Amino acid sequence: MEIELYFLGTSAGVPTPHRNVTSIVMRRKGELIFFDMGEGTQRQLFKLGLGLGKVIKIFFTHIHGDHILGFFPLLQTLTLFKRTKELFIFGPPKLKSLIDYFLSFLEVNLPFEMSFTEVYDGAIFEFDEYYIKAIKNSHTSWSFSYRFQEYGRSGKFNVKKALEDKVPRHLWKDLAGGKDVVINGKTFKSKDYIIPVSIRGRSIVVSGDTSPFKRMISFSKDCDVLIHEATFLHELKERSLETLHTTALEAAKIAKEANVKILILTHFSARYEDPNPLLEEARRIFPSTFLAEDLQNLTIPYVKPIFYDKL
Amino acid sequence: MEIELYFLGTSAGVPTPHRNVTSIVMRRKGELIFFDMGEGTQRQLFKLGLGLGKVIKIFFTHIHGDHILGFFPLLQTLTLFKRTKELFIFGPPKLKSLIDYFLSFLEVNLPFEMSFTEVYDGAIFEFDEYYIKAIKNSHTSWSFSYRFQEYGRSGKFNVKKALEDKVPRHLWKDLAGGKDVVINGKTFKSKDYIIPVSIRGRSIVVSGDTSPFKRMISFSKDCDVLIHEATFLHELKERSLETLHTTALEAAKIAKEANVKILILTHFSARYEDPNPLLEEARRIFPSTFLAEDLQNLTIPYVKPIFYDKL
Repeated sequence: MEIELYFLGTSAGVPTPHRNVTSIVMRRKGELIFFDMGEGTQRQLFKLGLGLGKVIKIFFTHIHGDHILGFFPLLQTLTLFKRTKELFIFGPPKLKSLIDYFLSFLEVNLPFEMSFTEVYDGAIFEFDEYYIKAIKNSHTSWSFSYRFQEYGRSGKFNVKKALEDKVPRHLWKDLAGGKDVVINGKTFKSKDYIIPVSIRGRSIVVSGDTSPFKRMISFSKDCDVLIHEATFLHELKERSLETLHTTALEAAKIAKEANVKILILTHFSARYEDPNPLLEEARRIFPSTFLAEDLQNLTIPYVKPIFYDKL
Repeated sequence: MEIELYFLGTSAGVPTPHRNVTSIVMRRKGELIFFDMGEGTQRQLFKLGLGLGKVIKIFFTHIHGDHILGFFPLLQTLTLFKRTKELFIFGPPKLKSLIDYFLSFLEVNLPFEMSFTEVYDGAIFEFDEYYIKAIKNSHTSWSFSYRFQEYGRSGKFNVKKALEDKVPRHLWKDLAGGKDVVINGKTFKSKDYIIPVSIRGRSIVVSGDTSPFKRMISFSKDCDVLIHEATFLHELKERSLETLHTTALEAAKIAKEANVKILILTHFSARYEDPNPLLEEARRIFPSTFLAEDLQNLTIPYVKPIFYDKL
């Protein structure tokens, strides 16, 4: 199944008539995985018609208002919608106290479980088919970038042989997963049912707010999509340094050195009513650069996984 | 000068693709007077092109999330914009602690003064040319409706006579304001320069969330515009009772009994993608009913005031 990336907001700090503040959501199988949730995120979701009934994970890069203040209205909405599925939150430790204060102050009684997991530099959050890794940015304290990484596929299950050999279907998963199985005294060896292939899982890096920093290059190495903030043109390098942000030129250099497939620029200063100059600046260094646009999406094609090796 | 009323959000509880959550702003001379500020209010303002450099007063009806959560992002924006003019906030006492917590948590250092005035049942806030009165609603505890009331005009300054009599211009204000003035031993009596007229100041009532309640009739008596919540059609009266809201039919009855000039319905449940049935229901009782629409405005014509008597 494809991974779809939706840009819910692409403006830095302040919304504009055409750009909301930061939020990105990834739709993958039955899940929505958010990166940040600025004010107005839920309305953008409703405009896209993305339902809220799915498994929801939310990763916060840092606790500046324009990255988090859409979360509390969403909590209220999920409560009105009588959600029952658990909500999984990941973010800087301090965020937990703001959430607790909000819930208690507004007397919101969540009808669902909500877990909060603290993020730290180098943290890896493992899920069935992918992991998400965090590194600390060069921004405020407790600001993170995230790498979504599907587990790679190092073999393909030989369905034809399994059918020929009449291996019962409920045992295919074990065989595919590397376990030998015994049926009526006969051993079926996993390795006989694996056609060796080597396909990387898909990978997406979301930068969060940050000055350019060296570790970002290894962190985003060879990824399919690098979504990097590009708050300013390089002519405003000084302003960018003051505010701990990245210029379009710098984002392009990172993409090039990291050998990413596609670079998507986002988090544009509201001064750029037309962000095309940012695109042109980046493309001079890294031609496979695109601009994030509110309510637009990017599809990352499916590579059907049978079983997974953690890369 | 006209009073312009802008509807920044007209949806109850949850935004929809076409309606944001509650906020109304009144533009009068150099001022913006807000009633509530749900999530996404600042972006709506930017869409209208209403600047933020003006005197700003914000009246909060109550502290449900969909009425207040756009305020904190606005505070952050005004900080980024380096506002220096004071901001005047009026709301239920408890709101103050949320504001303080927010500012301290997000380390927002306001570059302007912000005053917070507690609202209570029957409170009257007097300004130079109008007052705003609050009454307690029948909703959650600490929920209010507001009446904006210009001071009436009980006389018109006789400019022609003042010119004929060569009264220096800088003394006109005193004469118009009821003071006699003496120039070179000659007394000019205020009453000689006043043409008696009797013109009411303009009045606008904003209901906030509430069940229908009897005091609202006297509170909104004879007002120019009653903006009343109409969350449900009357067929959902039971749901309306449970959630302490008003139906379109009930709002129309209040408007009729209060003898208002115009009734504007707002705060529609997100279930009404087309709110025209609410309009039809109300118009059967009170024909001068209109539906609030996001980003639309209503102009209330100017009656040029010379001096004011508090009505």
